[in-house]
Amino acid sequence: MTTRVEIFTDINCPFCYLGKARFEAALAEFEHRDEVEVVHRSFELDPALPADQTGPVIPRIAAKYGIGVDQAAANERAIAAQAAQLGLPYRSSGRDYGNSFDMHRLLHFALEKGRQDALLDALYAGNFAEPEPVFGDRERLVAIAVRAGLDENQVRAVLADPNAYAADVRRDERDAAQLGATGVPYFVFDNKYAVSGAQPTEVFTQALTTAWNDRTAPLITVDGDNAPACGPDGCPS
Amino acid sequence: MTTRVEIFTDINCPFCYLGKARFEAALAEFEHRDEVEVVHRSFELDPALPADQTGPVIPRIAAKYGIGVDQAAANERAIAAQAAQLGLPYRSSGRDYGNSFDMHRLLHFALEKGRQDALLDALYAGNFAEPEPVFGDRERLVAIAVRAGLDENQVRAVLADPNAYAADVRRDERDAAQLGATGVPYFVFDNKYAVSGAQPTEVFTQALTTAWNDRTAPLITVDGDNAPACGPDGCPS
Repeated sequence: MTTRVEIFTDINCPFCYLGKARFEAALAEFEHRDEVEVVHRSFELDPALPADQTGPVIPRIAAKYGIGVDQAAANERAIAAQAAQLGLPYRSSGRDYGNSFDMHRLLHFALEKGRQDALLDALYAGNFAEPEPVFGDRERLVAIAVRAGLDENQVRAVLADPNAYAADVRRDERDAAQLGATGVPYFVFDNKYAVSGAQPTEVFTQALTTAWNDRTAPLITVDGDNAPACGPDGCPS
Repeated sequence: MTTRVEIFTDINCPFCYLGKARFEAALAEFEHRDEVEVVHRSFELDPALPADQTGPVIPRIAAKYGIGVDQAAANERAIAAQAAQLGLPYRSSGRDYGNSFDMHRLLHFALEKGRQDALLDALYAGNFAEPEPVFGDRERLVAIAVRAGLDENQVRAVLADPNAYAADVRRDERDAAQLGATGVPYFVFDNKYAVSGAQPTEVFTQALTTAWNDRTAPLITVDGDNAPACGPDGCPS
């Protein structure tokens, strides 16, 4: 029986980028990795941000949290150093902030197309490792989605319709609140175990192992009546 | 948080066809239906059947289970009557039997493309409601898959490669055994509750309600250390 991991994430979240790599390092070494299913779910760090408001992240962070620009820049460099330890490219200055709602809508579309993980990697790379901004530029977003294997015309149709997959994003965000996620990344294993934050790889190994061992608990049968079914001995009706 | 329903099924199984309709009737009335995720999983009733062995099901059933052809035909008519009560088309004679492995491989391919449910409906309709046999005729299978919204060339590529998605089918069958499924349809709710057989709709309503109410149990946190995460108040590193 598969183990299911749901990862709540935002494109604006550098620790989501790092946490994904740490989780994947654990998964790559996990004996039952072929029976682990991963799905990415939406969490906006700043859902109230107007879609047309975008710009360099360092002065934004400094203003929002009342720290100096130097301190904000140092934080970015510290994250870049952590990324480097994981072999992840990270530009230590120059990334933008912006509203990620359209990206989350696209991630739900990509889930239907079997390209969600590829799109999330492409969005992270676009935001954290490449010089062109990913916010406020629809053509750039289309190019990233196409790079992740999605059909250009379908991507444009999703982006052009603000209602497309919007309910899926909102549902994820309600679920996140219900599951106790106050920040991201937030990992949920088989609706039972949670890992909060970009924990060390061994914590993900522990969570995978715990969830895996737990999945063999016997099922509870709902209703005991015999109902018609087919088995190796036929279909008694 | 979504509730996840896994339905083990075989194309050769008339009660899977009926059970799907009963489950869907319950789901359509379920208050939280938009937060229920359904996935179909593979179960072959006769995995040892050679792929080139196919033919009318009634004499096959009669021979296999040592009943008269008249009794086997009467069983089919009884199933057709149950199908009619659900508004499902069902030809009361003339369907074929055959090896369903290629169909299960295609259902896994369709899952990746977001068309699994549509393909299963099309396969059931092809086998139980339409006069042309679905076994032993690759062109017919391609036509059914295309009708379900899949790309013809990709479908042909999957069918031409006997290894494509074969491991997924085998994994489902191992999981079915582990979950205690000895026949189909077999419904598993959130890896915790099971419904066996084409139960009445109200049993599915009960299972959905039980699983839904259960999903709000608090998560167990794996590791208590604070790890870097981003929240509404920023990304302390």
